Order: sequence, then structure tokens, then C-alpha cells
Amino acid sequence: MSTKTKVVVLGSGVAGLTAAHVLTDGANADQFDVCIVARDLPEDFHSQAYASPWAGANWSPMNMDERLTGWEKRTVEKWREMEAEGSGLVMYEKSKIYHKGPPPEKLQSNYKAIVGSDYAISPSDLPDDFGVDTVSTFTTNSINPRLYLPALKAELEKRGVIFTRQRVISLDEVCEMAGEGGVVVNATALGARSLLGVEDKKMYPVRGQTILVEAPNIREFMACDEPYGPNNDYLFYFIPRPGSTEALIGGTYQPGNWDVSVNWDTANAMWEKAKRLMDPTCTLSNTTSVCVPLVKAGLGLRRSSEKKTTLVLHSYGFGGAGYQQSWGAAEEGVELLKKALKA
Amino acid sequence: MSTKTKVVVLGSGVAGLTAAHVLTDGANADQFDVCIVARDLPEDFHSQAYASPWAGANWSPMNMDERLTGWEKRTVEKWREMEAEGSGLVMYEKSKIYHKGPPPEKLQSNYKAIVGSDYAISPSDLPDDFGVDTVSTFTTNSINPRLYLPALKAELEKRGVIFTRQRVISLDEVCEMAGEGGVVVNATALGARSLLGVEDKKMYPVRGQTILVEAPNIREFMACDEPYGPNNDYLFYFIPRPGSTEALIGGTYQPGNWDVSVNWDTANAMWEKAKRLMDPTCTLSNTTSVCVPLVKAGLGLRRSSEKKTTLVLHSYGFGGAGYQQSWGAAEEGVELLKKALKA
Repeated sequence: MSTKTKVVVLGSGVAGLTAAHVLTDGANADQFDVCIVARDLPEDFHSQAYASPWAGANWSPMNMDERLTGWEKRTVEKWREMEAEGSGLVMYEKSKIYHKGPPPEKLQSNYKAIVGSDYAISPSDLPDDFGVDTVSTFTTNSINPRLYLPALKAELEKRGVIFTRQRVISLDEVCEMAGEGGVVVNATALGARSLLGVEDKKMYPVRGQTILVEAPNIREFMACDEPYGPNNDYLFYFIPRPGSTEALIGGTYQPGNWDVSVNWDTANAMWEKAKRLMDPTCTLSNTTSVCVPLVKAGLGLRRSSEKKTTLVLHSYGFGGAGYQQSWGAAEEGVELLKKALKA
Repeated sequence: MSTKTKVVVLGSGVAGLTAAHVLTDGANADQFDVCIVARDLPEDFHSQAYASPWAGANWSPMNMDERLTGWEKRTVEKWREMEAEGSGLVMYEKSKIYHKGPPPEKLQSNYKAIVGSDYAISPSDLPDDFGVDTVSTFTTNSINPRLYLPALKAELEKRGVIFTRQRVISLDEVCEMAGEGGVVVNATALGARSLLGVEDKKMYPVRGQTILVEAPNIREFMACDEPYGPNNDYLFYFIPRPGSTEALIGGTYQPGNWDVSVNWDTANAMWEKAKRLMDPTCTLSNTTSVCVPLVKAGLGLRRSSEKKTTLVLHSYGFGGAGYQQSWGAAEEGVELLKKALKA
């Protein structure tokens, strides 16, 4: 009979998969017996309620909070390791971010401290009529979710993790699966709003429409921190996807908007901006465009014991920073868990 | 070389599957070579963007429009045939609908003419405090979408119809598949709003939250035509699912609401009403609850030729009447198509 602690990870987005990785890595593998239960799995590229495959995803600091910055720093370290191992999943390339006025000093020092690359601010080479005054340059990592998620899954399966497709309605159902003395990792993202026994009403959707283009000539990450569009809720970013000739172009930031239909006016506005700022030859042919409800709120890891004796590690609510906080957040969560299990 | 007309049906909800049935039935089978392309397939019971598995579904007249009434009448006929064949998919049971005041005369005559069963109105046996004055009783058909959809698919596969899981962005993509002289059936429901080359902005979602309960003792359909709930946008209906001990309880009618998260206050209100009106012992255990964006608008069949020579039969926008209009609408659509092909 196994003396390992049974862990049921609920959700197979980047948060759930990374938590499962940490739980089955190195010495942890002797302590935990992990399985994943999820409505959508990493091969479901077309699901409209599964945000992870539609993410950018790259590393670009989004906050000044010390704890979150720590997670982001740790994720960069981990991605650099993966890059060094030649996984082919991680790209390290030049980046440009356009600002109105100089970027906040704290942000500058964060960039330098975390990314560890040269960081320069320049008022030159600015595009006309975009209302920006400065450009900061540095190098950073990007990944391709459609290669990265299946790779995480494949490695987990090698380690014996079983994936089960199942839609779960209540936390009790998963606690039942984990059993007496077991552990549940709640990585349900926006689902935490509906999951009975959690029902976290602080969670709300942020509609993020993005498009994919063929742009083999441009491998730089670029963003513009000035919003545009009819309601000033469009944000421009251009993230080339390693291992492909595609780039993801963003996007929108529309809190409270659940609409998952594609707005083609928005898609065209993003594409036009990409052609002017990045690559006039990038084509929208053979592309896709979707809306992802992102989460924002409930950011953080919490531990709570429900009616059952099962420990529950909550790991959701990373908003637009799910990928870049993934390794740091997962490691902190697993540490919390190990301490609680020893106590 | 086949002389059959190639037909690509886009969408595998009840509208797409029924159209494919009509196109491959009897003599039509010699004329059409049909395949189905869809993001979600009938086995996807857990997708949040695929309304058909979450439907009621039964026959209860919802309008007075002559054309739509014709579709509904035809669907009842077809379901009675299936019942007679002993498919086990269709149930014919007593029904009760509570009204405030007497039901409209036109509706009464429609019920009698279409369902063909006894139809009685009575002021007696009314539940307290629900603000209703009369009850009409008749018999009607109910089906179980989770048996019905896979059964439609299995029959289509027997007839040689190939199902392909693919998310399609533009009408052009499907026209390409159908080829010169081919036909596309656009059965994308709410997707018609986003499908490039269609972009039907008249389409909007109607949020319909429903719950499933175990209620083996009650096999009657029941509805209450007085809205309730905090915004008067809850509607009560109780539809037992043939071939199971489950019943579906509705619901909400919230136009313009894209929210697909579960509201448990709503779910509990529906369950409470079901326990008081139908069966105090029905249990919410082992149940599920979801939100389905339904379509409303664009109701009808239209034929349009896009840039290509491909004929496109549009068949979407049936709102909450998708099942009960399915056979009539599909047959009329296929007739339109055959006339156009001969012309």
C-alpha cells in the first residue's frame, strides 16, 4: 500500500499543470500521488471556455507587488533552465515596449533585476500618431502555449499522472476523489466562481480577444502600454510563438465582459496596428481569433479545509499573468501544502 | 465518379444533425453526399458553448407564426413516428401548464390542432402563492438530448456521414471544403454572429440556466408561464428525460447575457420551486447545472450565395425552439435547396 499523499488537481490550465509538475518533481515524487481531473484538456485547442491555449504567453512584468514579483522572477529562472536544456519550448528575444512618458522607476528596476538583460529607454524611433513618447528595450522569454501545454502533459504522463476528463460541480466531489487525508488543488480559474463549496464571487471575467497571424519575419516581442480602440480597452501586444511562424496579437482588456463571440472589427483593428507597427506583410490568412474570459481577483494561494478532512490548495485568479507567475506560484503553493501536511 | 452533390453541414447541434438526416434519408441519399464539420460533437456533454445537450427538450408551442407552427407540427409527427418505431427516444406523457388568466385562444387551438391530444383548462388544483389562475392539461412529447443526439449521430454514421472536429472561422473555409457546385448548411447557431462572411449581428445570446435532478417518480411535463425571480427572468419548467430517472428543471430567459458561469442562488430557487410544485423528494445530488447561451433572432431559413459558386443554406436562430422546430425546419430547408439546385 502506497504511503504517498493522494492529490487531485482540478483543472489542466497552466496553473494546474505546473502545480502537478512541482508535486511530481524530484523528492516530491516520493511524497505525492497525483492525478488531474478537468473539463478541458491540453489538446482542446478549440474550447471557448479554456483560456490557457489562447494566451500570449511571455514574460513582461505586470505589477509591483513583492510576492507576485517573486513568482515572476522564479518563473523566468525556470524558463531559462528549460531554454538551457534545449527544450525548444522557450524563446529569448529582444523586446520593445512603447510608453507615454517614461516608464515607472520601480518597473524599470524590476525589469533589470528580474529579466537580467540590458534595459534601455529611448525617445527615438517612435512610430507616428500613437501617442507614445518613449520606448524601453530589453530581452525576455516567450513560449508557445500550444506546444508548452502538451509538453507539460506528456512529461506528467511519463511520471505516471493520470488525466481524467470530467466536469466537476462541487468541491465535495473532488474531495471525495482525494479521500481521507488526501489533497485537492483547486486550479479552476474562472470556474472558481461557480464551483459549489468555493463560489468565489470576487472572481470576474476579463474579455481578452486576440488573433493569430503568420509573421515569420518578426521574432521580437512588442507592446504598447497606451490603450486604444473605441472604449480605450484595446491593448497592443505582438508575441511571436517559438517553434512556429505564428505570432499572437493582442488584445482587449474588458473587465466584466463575458462575451465569447469574435468581434471582427476588433480583430481588424489589432491586425492593422500590427501591420503598421511590426510587419506590413503579416497575414491574417490561416489564422484564428477568439475571446478568452480571463480571471482577475482572488489572486493568490489560499489553503482551506472544507467539511472534509481533505486539504484544499486554491491556486487561481492570476488574471493575465498566469504563465509568467506559474512556476513561482506553484512552488509556493506546494511549500504551503507540505508545511500543512507536516503540522 | 460520384454525381452526388457534396454537402458540408457546419455544426452538429440539433439543427445540423437533423438537416443531415433529411439530406441522407430515402431518395435524398442518392442526391447528396453529406459530411459534418463542427467544433463540438454530440458526445461533448460538458462543453459550455454547445447548447444542444443542455436543452429540455420537449414539445410545447411557443409562438403563433404560421410558418413556425408548421415546423412544430411536422416535428411532432416525426417524433410520433419515432415513438411508434419503438426507438425509446421519445416519451408521450401528460402535461400541465399554469397560467395567469386563461391561455390565449389561438394558443389553445394550436395545442389541439398540433398535439392532437385532449386539451383541458381548469381553475382547480392550483398551487398557492404562485400567482396563477388556471391550469391547462394535455399530452405531449419529450426527448432526452443526451440519448437523442448520439442516436442521430450513430444513424448518420451508418449512412456514411463523416464527422470532423474542426473550428471554422469563415464561411469561405467551408465553401472551399464543399467545392465547386457544392452546398454548405450553416447550422452554427450563436456562432453565426462570429462566422466571417455571415456575421449576423441580429443574433444575440439568451442565457438559459437549467439544472438536472434525480426525480424518478414524476414523468409529467410541467411549466408555469408566469416569470419569477429577482428580475422576473426566471421561468419554471420541469421536463422528465425519457430513458433516465432524471428531469431537467428550468430556467432563465436572460436576453443579451453572455455569462456562462453557474449562479447557485438561481439553481436553488429553481430546485425549491420544483420541490414545491412537482416532487418534494427530487434530489439535486448527482446533478449538474449549466448556463447555455441560446440564440434568438435570425429565425428562419435563408439561402445566399457568397463569393463562391457554393450554395449556402442558413439554418440557425431557433431560440428556445430548436428541438421542436427541428424536423419541419430541416425539411423546408432541404426543399429550398433542392429547388435551387434544379433551377
